Amino acid sequence: MSSSRLIERIAVITSGGDAPGMNAALRAVVLAAEHDGIDVVGFRHGYEGLLNNDYMKLGRDEVEHILQYSGTIIKSARSERFKTDEGGIEAAHNLDAQNVDAFIVIGGDGSFRGANHLAKFWQGPIIGIPGTIDNDLFGTDNTIGYDTAVETAMDALDKIRDTAEAMDRVFIVEVMGRNAGYIAISSAMASGAERMILPELQKDKPLTIDALVKHVEGVNRVRGDSSYVMVLCENQWPGGAVRLAEQLEDRLNFPCRPCLLGHVQRGGRPTAMDRILATRLGVYAVQLVQEGITGVMAGIEKNELVTTPLEDTWVKRKVLSQELIDIQTKCFNPIKKDRHKATVDKA
Amino acid sequence: MSSSRLIERIAVITSGGDAPGMNAALRAVVLAAEHDGIDVVGFRHGYEGLLNNDYMKLGRDEVEHILQYSGTIIKSARSERFKTDEGGIEAAHNLDAQNVDAFIVIGGDGSFRGANHLAKFWQGPIIGIPGTIDNDLFGTDNTIGYDTAVETAMDALDKIRDTAEAMDRVFIVEVMGRNAGYIAISSAMASGAERMILPELQKDKPLTIDALVKHVEGVNRVRGDSSYVMVLCENQWPGGAVRLAEQLEDRLNFPCRPCLLGHVQRGGRPTAMDRILATRLGVYAVQLVQEGITGVMAGIEKNELVTTPLEDTWVKRKVLSQELIDIQTKCFNPIKKDRHKATVDKA
Amino acid sequence: MSSSRLIERIAVITSGGDAPGMNAALRAVVLAAEHDGIDVVGFRHGYEGLLNNDYMKLGRDEVEHILQYSGTIIKSARSERFKTDEGGIEAAHNLDAQNVDAFIVIGGDGSFRGANHLAKFWQGPIIGIPGTIDNDLFGTDNTIGYDTAVETAMDALDKIRDTAEAMDRVFIVEVMGRNAGYIAISSAMASGAERMILPELQKDKPLTIDALVKHVEGVNRVRGDSSYVMVLCENQWPGGAVRLAEQLEDRLNFPCRPCLLGHVQRGGRPTAMDRILATRLGVYAVQLVQEGITGVMAGIEKNELVTTPLEDTWVKRKVLSQELIDIQTKCFNPIKKDRHKATVDKA
Amino acid sequence: MSSSRLIERIAVITSGGDAPGMNAALRAVVLAAEHDGIDVVGFRHGYEGLLNNDYMKLGRDEVEHILQYSGTIIKSARSERFKTDEGGIEAAHNLDAQNVDAFIVIGGDGSFRGANHLAKFWQGPIIGIPGTIDNDLFGTDNTIGYDTAVETAMDALDKIRDTAEAMDRVFIVEVMGRNAGYIAISSAMASGAERMILPELQKDKPLTIDALVKHVEGVNRVRGDSSYVMVLCENQWPGGAVRLAEQLEDRLNFPCRPCLLGHVQRGGRPTAMDRILATRLGVYAVQLVQEGITGVMAGIEKNELVTTPLEDTWVKRKVLSQELIDIQTKCFNPIKKDRHKATVDKA
Repeated sequence: MSSSRLIERIAVITSGGDAPGMNAALRAVVLAAEHDGIDVVGFRHGYEGLLNNDYMKLGRDEVEHILQYSGTIIKSARSERFKTDEGGIEAAHNLDAQNVDAFIVIGGDGSFRGANHLAKFWQGPIIGIPGTIDNDLFGTDNTIGYDTAVETAMDALDKIRDTAEAMDRVFIVEVMGRNAGYIAISSAMASGAERMILPELQKDKPLTIDALVKHVEGVNRVRGDSSYVMVLCENQWPGGAVRLAEQLEDRLNFPCRPCLLGHVQRGGRPTAMDRILATRLGVYAVQLVQEGITGVMAGIEKNELVTTPLEDTWVKRKVLSQELIDIQTKCFNPIKKDRHKATVDKA
Repeated sequence: MSSSRLIERIAVITSGGDAPGMNAALRAVVLAAEHDGIDVVGFRHGYEGLLNNDYMKLGRDEVEHILQYSGTIIKSARSERFKTDEGGIEAAHNLDAQNVDAFIVIGGDGSFRGANHLAKFWQGPIIGIPGTIDNDLFGTDNTIGYDTAVETAMDALDKIRDTAEAMDRVFIVEVMGRNAGYIAISSAMASGAERMILPELQKDKPLTIDALVKHVEGVNRVRGDSSYVMVLCENQWPGGAVRLAEQLEDRLNFPCRPCLLGHVQRGGRPTAMDRILATRLGVYAVQLVQEGITGVMAGIEKNELVTTPLEDTWVKRKVLSQELIDIQTKCFNPIKKDRHKATVDKA
Repeated sequence: MSSSRLIERIAVITSGGDAPGMNAALRAVVLAAEHDGIDVVGFRHGYEGLLNNDYMKLGRDEVEHILQYSGTIIKSARSERFKTDEGGIEAAHNLDAQNVDAFIVIGGDGSFRGANHLAKFWQGPIIGIPGTIDNDLFGTDNTIGYDTAVETAMDALDKIRDTAEAMDRVFIVEVMGRNAGYIAISSAMASGAERMILPELQKDKPLTIDALVKHVEGVNRVRGDSSYVMVLCENQWPGGAVRLAEQLEDRLNFPCRPCLLGHVQRGGRPTAMDRILATRLGVYAVQLVQEGITGVMAGIEKNELVTTPLEDTWVKRKVLSQELIDIQTKCFNPIKKDRHKATVDKA
Repeated sequence: MSSSRLIERIAVITSGGDAPGMNAALRAVVLAAEHDGIDVVGFRHGYEGLLNNDYMKLGRDEVEHILQYSGTIIKSARSERFKTDEGGIEAAHNLDAQNVDAFIVIGGDGSFRGANHLAKFWQGPIIGIPGTIDNDLFGTDNTIGYDTAVETAMDALDKIRDTAEAMDRVFIVEVMGRNAGYIAISSAMASGAERMILPELQKDKPLTIDALVKHVEGVNRVRGDSSYVMVLCENQWPGGAVRLAEQLEDRLNFPCRPCLLGHVQRGGRPTAMDRILATRLGVYAVQLVQEGITGVMAGIEKNELVTTPLEDTWVKRKVLSQELIDIQTKCFNPIKKDRHKATVDKA
C-alpha cells in the first residue's frame, strides 16, 4: 500500500471530541509540510466542513504559536451526513476541486471510520493521527490529549484529597474514558485513590452497592477515621457519581460527596508530553503521505513510530496494563494490613 | 468590651467546612504569638477536639512551611454535642485545665455561633477569623479561601471554554456558595460566562426552564453557532447542573453537558491573596486578644483591619456588588447587539 | 473637566510593558462600548501604531474569549518618536482622520505621560487604565497584572521551598518591581520567605553583604539546618541575584543558588482578581469618556471606583503598606525566638 | 546475582539533588513492602544519615498522602565522608545494627556510585531507583522528576511567549540538565522555541556569538518583527543566560532578556507521569530485593520494567533522540521558507 508520489497539497481536519494537543498536531503537520514545500488547507468542523467546502489555508503564521492552547483552531464536529455514500462522494469531489493530494484526520475511532469511508470514494493517501483523551485506540501507547486529561483529573483528585484530609469523608470523582479505564486507572494511581471503578475490572462480576459499602467500612476499620476517595469511570454506574454518592450516604450515614468533572477534562493547556507526541505524529504523518502510505494510523508504541491499519484501531482491543491493575488492587489494597506472608491476597 | 490583660496561652481551632488558607492563618497566629512570648495550642477537629481534649502544641516548627497547603493541619469538623450546655461547660473546663487565656476560631458563621455559645461558659477573649470559601460573612470584604475557590472555578470554566469553542455546545458548571452568589458571579465574570444563576438574582421571580431556553436561543440567534457557558450556584436548581442539563437538552435538541465541581473548590494551593489575607487576620487576632477584645470577628473592609460583633456576621446581610451584577447582566448581556442608544436598558 | 458629549468611536491602545489582564480590559472596553452603541478601534503597538495608522476594528467577535489570555491582541510597544511635538501632532491627526471621539490607553506611567502629551494636540476625552505588573501607580490600590505577577512569583518561591526543604540551602529569587517593592513583599509574605530586599526598606541605610551574611547565620543558629529563601527586588543589588548568590556562597561556604524570573512574571493566565479588576476599569473608562471626563486614570481605591489626574499617578508616591512591612520584618522575624516580653521590638 | 531470600527489613534513602516524585517512590516502596510483610526504615539526608544512624520508621501512615508533594520527607544530601572506606564500613555496620536486609537508594549517578561503594562492605541486595530531573541515566527511558521539570520549564517558556508576542523581543531561558540536553530539547519542542542550545549539538563545533546573532537576524528577516525564544541548557555558555543576553543585546541593538529558572525546576507537584513512574519503580524495587537481585537500577525501557547494572548507568551513554533533534533543527527550522524541495537543508 505504498508508492512514493509527489504531494503538493495536504488537507487536514480535526474530528470528533476535541482533545488537548490537537492544535500542536496541526502545527506540526503545517511546519513539516512547509519544510517540504507542501501547502496545507484545513477544513473546519471536521467532515462537516469537507462537505461544506469550509476551509482555510494553514501556513506558518496561522499555527506558529497555537501549540500551548487546547481546542482546535479549525474546530471539530461530528457529521451524520458524511456517513452516507452521497456524503463520501461529495467530500471526495471537494478534495479534488481543491487539488488536494493527501488527507490527514486527527481524531478517534469515529473519525477513522470516516477516513475509511472516504477512501471508498477518493484515491489519495489518507493518514489518521490519534487525538482523543480516552486513549482507547489500538496501535498507539498514548493518544494525543490523554496525558493532559489524566493530569486534569489528578489535579481535581489532589484538591479533593486536601479537603478530604481535613474533614474525613467519602468522595466520588467521575472521570471520562468512554468504555475504557485509562484515565481512571492513571489518575487513581497518581492520586492515591482508595478505590477505582473501571470497565476492565467489572466485566465478569457486576459491582454491587453492598460490595462498595463493605470496602469503605473495611478501609475505615483498618485505618481509623480518614478520607476515602473513589475514582469512577463514566458509564460504569447508573446515574453516575451523583447517584452513587446518594446511595452510599444512605447506607453509611456519613457525608459522601460527588464530583463530576465532565468536559473540564478536554480543556487546559496540553502537557509537554502531549505536545511532543502531537509534534512527532504530525511530522510522521506528513512523511507517510509522501511515501504514498495510506489507510493507516500513525502511532507510537514502545517509543517507536509505527503504523496500524485504520480498521485495527477499533477492531483490535488495546489492553489495560495488568501491572498497573495489580499494583492498585493487590499491592496497594488499603484494607490489607497483615504483617506476614501467610496471607493469601486476592484482588 | 476591651481591657488589656496578660495572655500567656492561646487556643486555636479550625471549624466547619475547611477553606484554603486556614493553614496560613494558623501559621500567622503561631508566629505572631511566639513573637509576643505566647504559647499556642491547637485543638483538633474543631469544637469536637475541645470536648475530647484532643490538642497539640503549635510552635514555629509545626507551622513554618504549611502556608502553601490547603486543608488544615489540626483538621476541621462539625460538632452537635458542643451545642448543648453540657458541651459548652465541658469545653470551658478543658480550656481552663490547659491554662488557656484566649481562644481563636477560624471558620464560618456556624463556627462563630459556636464561639458565642462558648462565651456563655468561658470568660477569656474570643476572636473569630473568617475562613470559608463562600464569602458570605458580614463584616469582611473577603473571607479566607474565597479567592482560591473563585480561581479554581474559573480554571474549570476556562477549560470548559476551550472545548466549548471547539465543539459549539451548552455547558452548565455548578459552583459552591451555599446561599450566596459570590463564587458564581466572580467566576462567571472572570471567565466570560454567557449566563449565571445566583440566589441574589432570582429572589423575586423564580427562574423557569422556558426563560433559560429562550436565553440560549437568543444568544445563538445573535451570534450564530457558538459555545454557551452557564454558571449555576448550588441550591438554585432542583437536581443541580446534572438535571438542568437534561432538561435543556430535551428542549434544545443539542448537547448540553454538566460539570459539578463539588469539593474540588475547597482544595488547591491557596492564592497569594488568600495567604496574605490569612496572615494579616491571624496577626490581628493575636493583637486583639492581647488588647482584651472579645466576641468579635477580625476582618478587612476597604483594605482596613476592622472588627465586627460575631452575631452581626450572620445576622446582618452582606450585599453582592450591584456594580458587578450590572456589568454582567446589563452591560455584557450577550443577546443585545443594537448599535444605537434608543435601547431601553441603561447601565 | 467634564461635560457630557456624544461619543461614537473610541480608540484604544495598550502601551509599555505588557501585563496579564490587558486583554480583559480591552474586552471590557469593547463590550461596554458596543452596549452603548459605540465603535472601537485598536491601534497596534501602542503609540507607535497611532503614528503608523496601524489599527484594527475591535468588535465582540475579536474580544469574546480573550480574557483568559495574557499579552495583548493589539500588541504593545514603547515609542520615542511619539514623544516629540511632531509625533503628538501626527497622532492627533490620525485620530481625527479616523473620526475618533475618545481615547483610552492601558499601561503604566510612561503610557500616561504619553496621554498627557497627546492631550496637548488633541481635544477628545482621554482616560488611562492602569496596566502594569509593578503596581507602582498612585491612585489605585491595584494595577492590572499585579496580582498575576505576585501569583507567578509565589509559585516559583513555593517550588524553590520544596527543594530547599529537601536540601538545606540558601536561595535568592529576583523578582520584578522596577523601583517599588510590591511584588517582592507580597510574594515574600505569601511564600514565607526568610528575607526580602526592597527599595522601601533600604532607602536610608544601604544594605551590606555583611548584614546579609549575619542574617543567614542568625537564622541558621536559631533554627538549626534549614532552608533560607530570600526575595530580591530587581535593581536593588549590583549584578542581581546571580552576583549576590556568588558573594554569599563565598562567605558562607555552602551552596547559594540564584533564580531570575524575568519576563515569566509578565505572562501566564491572568488571575480572577486581575480579570475582574480589568473588567471593572474597562467598563468604567467607557462610562467616563461618555461623561466627558478627561485626563484622569480610572482606578479602584478601597473597593470604590475613583479617578486620579494622570499626572498625579506618577508625581505622587503610592506608599507600601507599613502593616505588611511590620508583619514580615518584626513580627515574623525568623531570628527572634525569645519567650518573654522583655524584648525591645514591638509590632 | 540472584537467589531468593527472606527480606524482613528494607532501608531506603533519597540522595543527591532532589527530584519531584521521590516521595511517590518512597510511598510505593513502603506500601509494596507492607503488602509483603516487610518493614521499612528511611535514613535521613541520604548517605549522611546512614553514617549518623539518623533514621525513621516508614509505615503507611507516614507515606499515605505524600505522593502529591515534591521534595522528599526523608530529605536528601550529598556526603563526602561516606566515600571513604571508613565511611563505607560505618554505613554497613549501621545497616547491620538495624537488622536491615536490603537497601534501596533513590537518586542519580552519584547516588549509584555510592551504592556500589556500599556493596564493597555490605552483603544485602542493593537496588537503585532513578530519581533525577536531568534524565541522564543509561538504562531507563525516563528518570523520576524529569517529566515534571520539563513541564515547569515549558510553563515558564509559555509565559515568556505570552509577553514576547506582545513586545517583539529576544528571550533566553536557561534550564537545567547538567551535561545532557533532555530538559532543553523537550521544553524547546513543547514550547515552540526558535532555538535551543544543547551539549549534544555543540560537541564538534563550538557555538559562537556570531552564529547566534546571524540566526536571530535570519529569523527576523524571514518572519518580520516577532518574538524569538531561545532555550539554553546550563553549562553551555560562559556566564549563562545573563551574560548571553548582554552579548546579544550589544550586537542586535534591541532588548534581549534572560531568565534563569534554577531550582524552581526541582519543585512543584509531580506530574501524573512522574508519580506513576515512581510508583511502578518503587514496587518493582521491592520485588527485586526479594528475588535476591542486587547491584542494579530498576528502570523502564520501551514501557517494560528492566534492570541495568549500576555501573552501566553512568558508564554507558544514553543518547538523545535523533528524531527529536531533526524535527527541531531541520524540519522546524524557523529560517527556511523555501517552497521547493530543491533546497538543501542543513542544521
